[in-house]
Amino acid sequence: MRRWAWLAAVALVTPAAAQEPQTPASVVAAAKAQEWNAIDPADLLVMELAPDTAGQPRTVVIQLVPRPFSQGWVDNIRRIAKAHWWDGTTVYRVVDNWVAQWGDGEDDKAKAKPLPEGLRVVPESEYVMPASREELTDWADEANFGAAGIRERPTAFLNDPYAPLTTFAQGWPIGTSSQGKWPTHCYATVGVARDLSPDTGTGAELYAVIGHAPRQLDRNIAVVGRVIEGIEHLSVLPRGKGEAGVYDDPKLRVPILSVRMGDELPEPPKFQYLASESASFAEYVRVKANRNDSFYKVPAGGIDVCNVQVPIRRVPAK
Amino acid sequence: MRRWAWLAAVALVTPAAAQEPQTPASVVAAAKAQEWNAIDPADLLVMELAPDTAGQPRTVVIQLVPRPFSQGWVDNIRRIAKAHWWDGTTVYRVVDNWVAQWGDGEDDKAKAKPLPEGLRVVPESEYVMPASREELTDWADEANFGAAGIRERPTAFLNDPYAPLTTFAQGWPIGTSSQGKWPTHCYATVGVARDLSPDTGTGAELYAVIGHAPRQLDRNIAVVGRVIEGIEHLSVLPRGKGEAGVYDDPKLRVPILSVRMGDELPEPPKFQYLASESASFAEYVRVKANRNDSFYKVPAGGIDVCNVQVPIRRVPAK
Repeated sequence: MRRWAWLAAVALVTPAAAQEPQTPASVVAAAKAQEWNAIDPADLLVMELAPDTAGQPRTVVIQLVPRPFSQGWVDNIRRIAKAHWWDGTTVYRVVDNWVAQWGDGEDDKAKAKPLPEGLRVVPESEYVMPASREELTDWADEANFGAAGIRERPTAFLNDPYAPLTTFAQGWPIGTSSQGKWPTHCYATVGVARDLSPDTGTGAELYAVIGHAPRQLDRNIAVVGRVIEGIEHLSVLPRGKGEAGVYDDPKLRVPILSVRMGDELPEPPKFQYLASESASFAEYVRVKANRNDSFYKVPAGGIDVCNVQVPIRRVPAK
Repeated sequence: MRRWAWLAAVALVTPAAAQEPQTPASVVAAAKAQEWNAIDPADLLVMELAPDTAGQPRTVVIQLVPRPFSQGWVDNIRRIAKAHWWDGTTVYRVVDNWVAQWGDGEDDKAKAKPLPEGLRVVPESEYVMPASREELTDWADEANFGAAGIRERPTAFLNDPYAPLTTFAQGWPIGTSSQGKWPTHCYATVGVARDLSPDTGTGAELYAVIGHAPRQLDRNIAVVGRVIEGIEHLSVLPRGKGEAGVYDDPKLRVPILSVRMGDELPEPPKFQYLASESASFAEYVRVKANRNDSFYKVPAGGIDVCNVQVPIRRVPAK
């Protein structure tokens, strides 16, 4: 937000930089190699949109949530991707401060593109996963304002209006209550569009969040992944002017050339995330929640889980 | 997020609609005329960007924060607007999930566009305004977990990681601590870009938030308004690839044809906001925090202040 943020960037490479207070970026830069975990290319979806008006490619990389989260839908998505079903579909709905949505986008069942066989109808009960005894103990400690160590854990969020306790697991923000645990909706989260309850969606129609975290969707719809590269190819799309933000002009629909699993590609993309159990991740959250550097003079003293943004980096192919 | 949200829109006009549970939209639709407050056109900035590639006009309407908030900068902004200083400047910086920024955008002081005379240098101390005895009592009640009525107030946010207490005043989300009160950063908030501390910016370089609420900026930078119409003309702009998201290609800069105070225009735009002190606003927040309707089956039981989105509507000119 500073008018000339690159002043700070320059400062980082001068000798004076050694005196600079920590920033989230400096904590991430100092993380040890073993604190970064590889993301399996078999857990990535690579979506190629048609090139933009300047002929530039538009690649969107999505990481699927790990087990045990939303596996019913994720299994469907793997099946749909392996059938190359999304090839030739479109991004057909974009709503400002809400979502960009893609898939077949046809509500007339007679005209809809037939889905691959073998998809499972996943029940609403799977929006929330059972939590372990330890996780529930954490939750109970918090609910009782126990003096347990959890209050000292920098990556446990107790001021979350949407969950009694929110933490990170396997690099994902996870809400927890006495009912269980679930992945949360943040910017760039990918979820399964659906019709009214009890429909839960197949996974063929997907959306990515392009605005303020719509946490009210948590436990009401399946979170299945997050965009880890190329979200800007979705967030800049024109907002739809049809009902519910659907493009009323079919020419606005953005063609999807292909969606492939990362391990199907000749050069599987390689990414890493900063392990949410690592010391550097805890320090990253602490520094983010207490910015006090050449730009920030009043530390917030807190942070919401969707402002944490788990550090993810692309690893050059060797 | 429902796949076919218009199903619900249709339902609203059928007789069955009478049985539908409340939604935020139904609460707003039922609000009484006297619960809506007029927004003075003298508190609006109307920014005309150059038409888009299809020749469509792009108008962005900004409401300035009321007294007592950030008045030093707002006074400067009024002066800058009345001098028509922004005419011919550009939107020059766009960062995904962060901000779109406009003004002169020239860091070489020798080349910078001279500012109107009479602008005040506002001190950092004015990021936070003194709170009244009553407001501080509210805050103390909360900090002590007192059993005061505040816990029952649906528009008082106690689970805000960024402030001990957050409430709405004059239709604006306001953080409060023992140090005072301040307007918060949410989606579409407009603030004053600045250089490193102790610079506080003049108000000539402005940004609008186009992503998840960057609440860590609260108390570190001046919030001066919010985009109430046309945010999508900023949020869809290509993300800058230069340092700090500045457009390195000058051709990408979006020309600002004019910025006018609302009351300067031949037809001053008329808007209203739902009074944050009204019963309907309280009900709106309660229903938003506890969605339970044909789409939402698991009420969140809470909401963060930036997801509230104060209802604002345009009133047809008569």
